[in-house]
Amino acid sequence: MKSDLPALMEAHKLDALLVFGDALHNPAMVYFTGVTHVTEAMLALRRGEQPLLFCHAMERDEAATSGLPTRSITDYKFSEILAASNGDLELAYARLYQRMLTDAGLTSGRVAVYGQRDAGRAFGLLSALGELLPDLEFVGEFGSSVLLEARATKDPAEIDRMRRIQKQTTEVVGQVADFLSRHRAQDSVLVDSEGQPVTVAKVKSKINLWLAERGLDNPHGTIFAPGAEGGVPHSMGSPDAVLRLGEPIVFDIFPVEAGGGYWADFTRTWCLGHASDGAQKLYDDVKFVFDTIVSELKPDTQCSTYQTRTCELFQQRGHPTVAEDPTTKVGFVHGLAHGLGLEVHERPAFGRDATPTDILRRGSVVTIEPGLYYPERGLGMRIEDAVFMRADGKPEILAEYPLDLVIPIRS
Amino acid sequence: MKSDLPALMEAHKLDALLVFGDALHNPAMVYFTGVTHVTEAMLALRRGEQPLLFCHAMERDEAATSGLPTRSITDYKFSEILAASNGDLELAYARLYQRMLTDAGLTSGRVAVYGQRDAGRAFGLLSALGELLPDLEFVGEFGSSVLLEARATKDPAEIDRMRRIQKQTTEVVGQVADFLSRHRAQDSVLVDSEGQPVTVAKVKSKINLWLAERGLDNPHGTIFAPGAEGGVPHSMGSPDAVLRLGEPIVFDIFPVEAGGGYWADFTRTWCLGHASDGAQKLYDDVKFVFDTIVSELKPDTQCSTYQTRTCELFQQRGHPTVAEDPTTKVGFVHGLAHGLGLEVHERPAFGRDATPTDILRRGSVVTIEPGLYYPERGLGMRIEDAVFMRADGKPEILAEYPLDLVIPIRS
Repeated sequence: MKSDLPALMEAHKLDALLVFGDALHNPAMVYFTGVTHVTEAMLALRRGEQPLLFCHAMERDEAATSGLPTRSITDYKFSEILAASNGDLELAYARLYQRMLTDAGLTSGRVAVYGQRDAGRAFGLLSALGELLPDLEFVGEFGSSVLLEARATKDPAEIDRMRRIQKQTTEVVGQVADFLSRHRAQDSVLVDSEGQPVTVAKVKSKINLWLAERGLDNPHGTIFAPGAEGGVPHSMGSPDAVLRLGEPIVFDIFPVEAGGGYWADFTRTWCLGHASDGAQKLYDDVKFVFDTIVSELKPDTQCSTYQTRTCELFQQRGHPTVAEDPTTKVGFVHGLAHGLGLEVHERPAFGRDATPTDILRRGSVVTIEPGLYYPERGLGMRIEDAVFMRADGKPEILAEYPLDLVIPIRS
Repeated sequence: MKSDLPALMEAHKLDALLVFGDALHNPAMVYFTGVTHVTEAMLALRRGEQPLLFCHAMERDEAATSGLPTRSITDYKFSEILAASNGDLELAYARLYQRMLTDAGLTSGRVAVYGQRDAGRAFGLLSALGELLPDLEFVGEFGSSVLLEARATKDPAEIDRMRRIQKQTTEVVGQVADFLSRHRAQDSVLVDSEGQPVTVAKVKSKINLWLAERGLDNPHGTIFAPGAEGGVPHSMGSPDAVLRLGEPIVFDIFPVEAGGGYWADFTRTWCLGHASDGAQKLYDDVKFVFDTIVSELKPDTQCSTYQTRTCELFQQRGHPTVAEDPTTKVGFVHGLAHGLGLEVHERPAFGRDATPTDILRRGSVVTIEPGLYYPERGLGMRIEDAVFMRADGKPEILAEYPLDLVIPIRS
């Protein structure tokens, strides 16, 4: 958590952190500022000190809501720097940031860099600044990072927010279940009162309204993928697809607090009316693995062990897994879990990019999401909850929701 | 526009473009792929060839909707690369991308880099790749860029989409006007049927619902800033603020196509019931400047001339401007205009970062948004439309909406 930063920075020999970009939909910045309408900003955090936020004058009131000391970028009079640089935008930007860094006391030492930006702009600016400030070493961590390590455990205030958005998300899931079960079937296809098929697009438009009513953003959309589409884990569901009784629908929903704060992540797979035999069998296996893994979660264990265990359990039930073939497209084809927070996927990692430093700890919030996929049989099945590892070492499902496979439908 | 890319790349001596990140809310990627649920991807475009999209297997169906040839990142078996790198994530990532670039035929030449990513990850990965592929020169343009130059003019298909979202946005603005005028005032404060004040939060919740009904995302929120808050251009409006008759409310709305495509951008300033004398005077001046500038727009002129002209017009009417003092917080305090497209601010630039290469052209889409700000007098005033420069050289307002200052209210 945030209070770990000074020690983590010391362990990684970092003198400062530098964050670029907006305070909206930018996890590294929002971690320090909260969500606020500040754009094209820079935050400098010297080890053990309070962060300093540079922002434009016309966003001064929004910046003040961060509670951080601020400096005005406007006061550097960029138009004059640009004129003095003979209209060379790159030279002017490099000089502007050189002056800001100097005023922040950052002219030497090791500085780790963060923030959502255009990759080329970041690379170009940092390369140019490295020449202007030769005693400053920019550190671009591209595996894990000091900031991701800090964010890999959450403090109580973060848990409150995550519990709230996960709960709001399950409320919307409940509204979707009610919406579906209010319909009837005709020739095994779900239809409305006028006999028109209920499409995936129709369901998603309802989801977006119900999320908006709760003030949540849904920038990545929602997976609502029936039949064969659900057999490919990240297929979103075609807008015109109809919903057939018996076939599984993978429903994976992952909204974020308005403006880009903490994310929820939640999946159920539903069959309308009844479950086909194939769907029921997959459900039984996925549910067994889900329950087993949740019951076995313990703090201070390596995350990769749960991935291994999941593959073992699925293999025992006759399913191919990524353990034997990392490119398999049938069976268990992805990671069991991932950290959840200001990004929908963050540390700790459980899947292909897990290392020995990815450890489940007290304060971790992770998804648990075993799944099975047989696209050529028209079948996909996934169950996902968000789990918080409490101080007493027990896992807590952040928002409980029934695990039922079948949504009853009037025939 | 996109068809200009080969010539632009040749002029800038670029052999290829490389785009990192998602195909959601990532302008550089979406420009080539469209909005689709592809995450942590890489797109390689060699000059004059078709782009090649690298994506993970579980997003293969989503990637296919781009219509581009694709390669599976999963087939590189990252877990095996990581094991062969002794668990060193950075080494493993560098080797993975080295192999992908090699397979894309990119082992030498000058390659410009784009895409929303963490700044440190981009800097670190590109620095490491530069050592593994010494004949490849990564170019990080951090002023304007070849891609931004191409995007600075739009083709007819882009204009259709931009006209559509700007029109949808003005429909929502009309709903807000109707909503406000259905209320009455009590002691000069707008109240609902139960006598409760209509707050900024209430108005914004309606805006988000009406945007969601149209399938639009609103990741940066909406400015609905009454009185003194509207006197600071980017203050969003406090949730609990109430709406008083006569005082100006700056209403700046900028949604984006679902998943992060083209943006709308639109501002009106309204007074409820009647306009105070101060508000009316500011409105008259802003409206005069708005009409004058729109009438003077001509293709193939430098954008900075319109900024200069705006300052001149406001100065003639007695207002301070950024022309005399770039740090002024009263009068005309910002840029007149900016390019609009896959980013809410893109090229061409008109304000402090405008260069002689920022030229208004046939095919440009720009905002025109003069404004005046007197926060200590509780006054802010801005009018903004999106303007498309047609092939015949005439400006077209993308979505017409009345410029009236006063919203009638029952007294």
